[in-house]
Amino acid sequence: MKNGERLIYVALGGAGEIGMNMYAYGWGKPGDEDWILVDMGVTFPNMDSSPGVDLITADPSFIAARRDRLRGVFITHAHEDHIGALGMLWHRLEAPIYTREFTGLVAADKLERFGLSPEHVTIVGPMPEMIEMGPFKVGFMPVSHSIPEASAMVIDTPAGRVVHTGDLKLDPAPQVGEAFDPARFAEIAAPGVLALVCDSTNVFSPEAGRSEASIVEDITEMMKQAKGMVVATTFASNIARLRTLAKAAAAADRSVLVLGRAMNRMLAFARAAKLLPDFPDTVSLDEAEVIPRDHLFVLATGSQGEMRAASAQLSREKYLGLELAEGDTFLFSSKTIPGNEVSVGRIINNLAMKGVTVVEEDARYHVSGHANRPDIQELHRIFDPRLVVPMHGEYRHLREHALLARAGGRKAAIAPNGTVIDISDDGAIIDEVETGRLYLDGTVMIGALDGIVRERIRMAIRGHVAVSVIIDEEGRPMDGVWAIASGLSEGEDGDFEAVLEAAIEAEISRASRRVLASDDALEELIMRAVNRAGKNSLGKKPVCKVMINRLA
Amino acid sequence: MKNGERLIYVALGGAGEIGMNMYAYGWGKPGDEDWILVDMGVTFPNMDSSPGVDLITADPSFIAARRDRLRGVFITHAHEDHIGALGMLWHRLEAPIYTREFTGLVAADKLERFGLSPEHVTIVGPMPEMIEMGPFKVGFMPVSHSIPEASAMVIDTPAGRVVHTGDLKLDPAPQVGEAFDPARFAEIAAPGVLALVCDSTNVFSPEAGRSEASIVEDITEMMKQAKGMVVATTFASNIARLRTLAKAAAAADRSVLVLGRAMNRMLAFARAAKLLPDFPDTVSLDEAEVIPRDHLFVLATGSQGEMRAASAQLSREKYLGLELAEGDTFLFSSKTIPGNEVSVGRIINNLAMKGVTVVEEDARYHVSGHANRPDIQELHRIFDPRLVVPMHGEYRHLREHALLARAGGRKAAIAPNGTVIDISDDGAIIDEVETGRLYLDGTVMIGALDGIVRERIRMAIRGHVAVSVIIDEEGRPMDGVWAIASGLSEGEDGDFEAVLEAAIEAEISRASRRVLASDDALEELIMRAVNRAGKNSLGKKPVCKVMINRLA
Repeated sequence: MKNGERLIYVALGGAGEIGMNMYAYGWGKPGDEDWILVDMGVTFPNMDSSPGVDLITADPSFIAARRDRLRGVFITHAHEDHIGALGMLWHRLEAPIYTREFTGLVAADKLERFGLSPEHVTIVGPMPEMIEMGPFKVGFMPVSHSIPEASAMVIDTPAGRVVHTGDLKLDPAPQVGEAFDPARFAEIAAPGVLALVCDSTNVFSPEAGRSEASIVEDITEMMKQAKGMVVATTFASNIARLRTLAKAAAAADRSVLVLGRAMNRMLAFARAAKLLPDFPDTVSLDEAEVIPRDHLFVLATGSQGEMRAASAQLSREKYLGLELAEGDTFLFSSKTIPGNEVSVGRIINNLAMKGVTVVEEDARYHVSGHANRPDIQELHRIFDPRLVVPMHGEYRHLREHALLARAGGRKAAIAPNGTVIDISDDGAIIDEVETGRLYLDGTVMIGALDGIVRERIRMAIRGHVAVSVIIDEEGRPMDGVWAIASGLSEGEDGDFEAVLEAAIEAEISRASRRVLASDDALEELIMRAVNRAGKNSLGKKPVCKVMINRLA
Repeated sequence: MKNGERLIYVALGGAGEIGMNMYAYGWGKPGDEDWILVDMGVTFPNMDSSPGVDLITADPSFIAARRDRLRGVFITHAHEDHIGALGMLWHRLEAPIYTREFTGLVAADKLERFGLSPEHVTIVGPMPEMIEMGPFKVGFMPVSHSIPEASAMVIDTPAGRVVHTGDLKLDPAPQVGEAFDPARFAEIAAPGVLALVCDSTNVFSPEAGRSEASIVEDITEMMKQAKGMVVATTFASNIARLRTLAKAAAAADRSVLVLGRAMNRMLAFARAAKLLPDFPDTVSLDEAEVIPRDHLFVLATGSQGEMRAASAQLSREKYLGLELAEGDTFLFSSKTIPGNEVSVGRIINNLAMKGVTVVEEDARYHVSGHANRPDIQELHRIFDPRLVVPMHGEYRHLREHALLARAGGRKAAIAPNGTVIDISDDGAIIDEVETGRLYLDGTVMIGALDGIVRERIRMAIRGHVAVSVIIDEEGRPMDGVWAIASGLSEGEDGDFEAVLEAAIEAEISRASRRVLASDDALEELIMRAVNRAGKNSLGKKPVCKVMINRLA
């Protein structure tokens, strides 16, 4: 571009994983850019790599370092992987937040939970309304997804127009939110699109996506056929599905009970935004108690097997007075996210023990909220961009999406988290910047690479030994080395702690005065003794911490 | 039965999970039975419920308590979930082991690894050969599966004949091992079958299973079409697939390199048993180095994403001189077991970054080794048993299999681990006995409910704090409480250990002489202080261990 100005793009999260979306766009000369940020989402921890962690966000350091030129944060829609980090990270950015109305209710709630003012959120209507900020003019383009007011961001810059799809599908009858409108998309495409930054989630799904409308009838039929109580679970934020399920229940003459805080909250937001005029009235637990089973429908949280959510509770025992039994039906109106199969399986087995009929992963009762492969191709055709930038996917999805775009004769740039590309130069890679993950750990934000969680994993695998020794005023070890083992067996010889203490005492008794005088040398000697005893007695080298008390 | 004798059955493992198979059959009056045991398998640990554990077996206590009347242990085939616990648990039983020839080679290896004599294994030919022991006459009935010499056990008793299927499919052309032979099955069914104790793994798969032969052509074609190197992974013990892949490679003019100890060992056993006469010669790493990529095929271990196996290593970096690159193909000729999706996904993403074409979960290149729903129905028809006892499945599979049998007009008994049924009385439930899991943890066998692993999980989630205090000769606390935190952040205030120490010192300074004099009371006081400080500073209550040193 003239003057060396350029439009650059970098994913801080969401390109290289499905989750924790956070994308930055910069316009200007190198090092002298104005910025906007799209989405601030979370992803969820697991025992394998992040035990004890509560939530995971992208590390916003790159954009935080540029926050004096950060013009605004745009949230495409209210799913956790797009909005969940707002409360946790906003203090690092302190930039105005722009959302549509429904998303704004959720955004305000996220801020308030971290003691922040909801006034940082500005509500914006759908296009043609556009927000101008420095070199950017940004609008919310309604798209169909599974939550109300999902939007793509249309970002006009001096270099041209960028369409950042957010999450979308091409659904002519999404039940909630705006339908796919090819004419409207074509209008937005008409001035020419420099880059389509596009959802890649379902690039491996070969058939065109199905409409939410296509499952309404089957779900209704199922509710009518079912003899006992029907329980269904889905994501709490899948408002479209909640509506589909509740309306089907009503058509089958079933009262609707909603179990689970997240779901009740989402429904409250949707009602507040007047987005659910025809959602059936729900009943309370007390009312539900006197309704015959075959006239009751329960919407429950916990479709991913979360241990403390309503679905898991219901599968285990009587929960809030409700107990599932032979003849009842439990519907997973959801897809199990990879990694959650075992916990979902546990629920299914528990339900099978109760004689409950479980329906899962059945295409009649679930459709995805994301564009499939042919839909992605249709998006390419409609927007006819100069450049396709795949996002919202693991690396394999980004690559496949880029190959698909290239097979269609287009340019495509694979830009995983941290790869800075020049959108105004056909996606040329111009830099690699640090990105990473932050963990909300209890009430503290920590870095994923701080070593804290790594030490937890080591303790989980190897156990932990704490050793306390006392060195007297003369520098001699006192009797009674103390070792406490945690998460370790007694070993084949029994009493591993006694074995440890004997091993440490034997080592210390042979130690020179020089070693005894040095905390470091003594600690190293003790750790060696613990390692050896662990290896011999247990076949394990525990994590070891040593406390040397010197009497003054 | 006359005299009150009866034939009873109890699963100690394998009925209520897929893995760690172990089934006991008893004949006699109540409390006066002779026993045989079928299979002694393992299952694999995971970070969610068994961090640090190396292998999991069923707890053999029930049968160990009856080992003076245990006539023999029969191993149906050499897959780890049927044979893997032999070395670990045999000393608890000390009963003769019966296997067919190939399985015997693996069994001997399992015993030798635990310092036991391979002479405990007796090799038995296929039926009509039968072993007589007390009231039992037992034979190995060849079945098709994915490993050589897989067998069902035919157990003749005074009450009648039981067919215990082991793992099987109805494959007329299994490539390795004996083909499904309906006439032979019918012969065995002819005298009448009291009970069919039957594989339930694939009861939810609606289509009839496909033969191993059905994928040979597609795999060969794929090997021929591929431009660069081809790597394929599958279970090391899936000898049928190893042969299919290697023969396809040879037909595509590719040399075969086998990477991974488990796979090389399994192939050695199969060659020793002369079961692979037409397996192509393999090449060494040195030889492979000079072979053009498009003439090389690599068989690699690690189809489930195991971090240290060959597939994961190849996906990450140069491994043993081999490096995958753009244009190469990587085939998962396997099914991803629920729970392993994330680790398999990691390999796929790594490979995508290298530009490698990944083929996974593709029915053209993989068939299951288990009977699908219609095949299970065919087994019911062929054996026409008085009673169907579903095994080898999670609870949901057992239940579905029982419903299927009942829908076919048969009796079925759902008998998960520990449920003792009387096979000679139509599967009536007569008792519930203790079952459970043992963990091989390093070199020690521990009980799953010993609390050891639970403490590890707690440390992984909450972190660990060790506290050391010294009480002087007068019973007064000395300066310098010491707290060491492991797997915990510094907290919002920084230096969590200093915060902890101050909190503990403050508590101790307020403690009465009575509390100071009691180790229990002092420990409780310190733990409370640690909990409170953890909650305030981190939002977490750590696992806490206290060492009180009293100067004499």
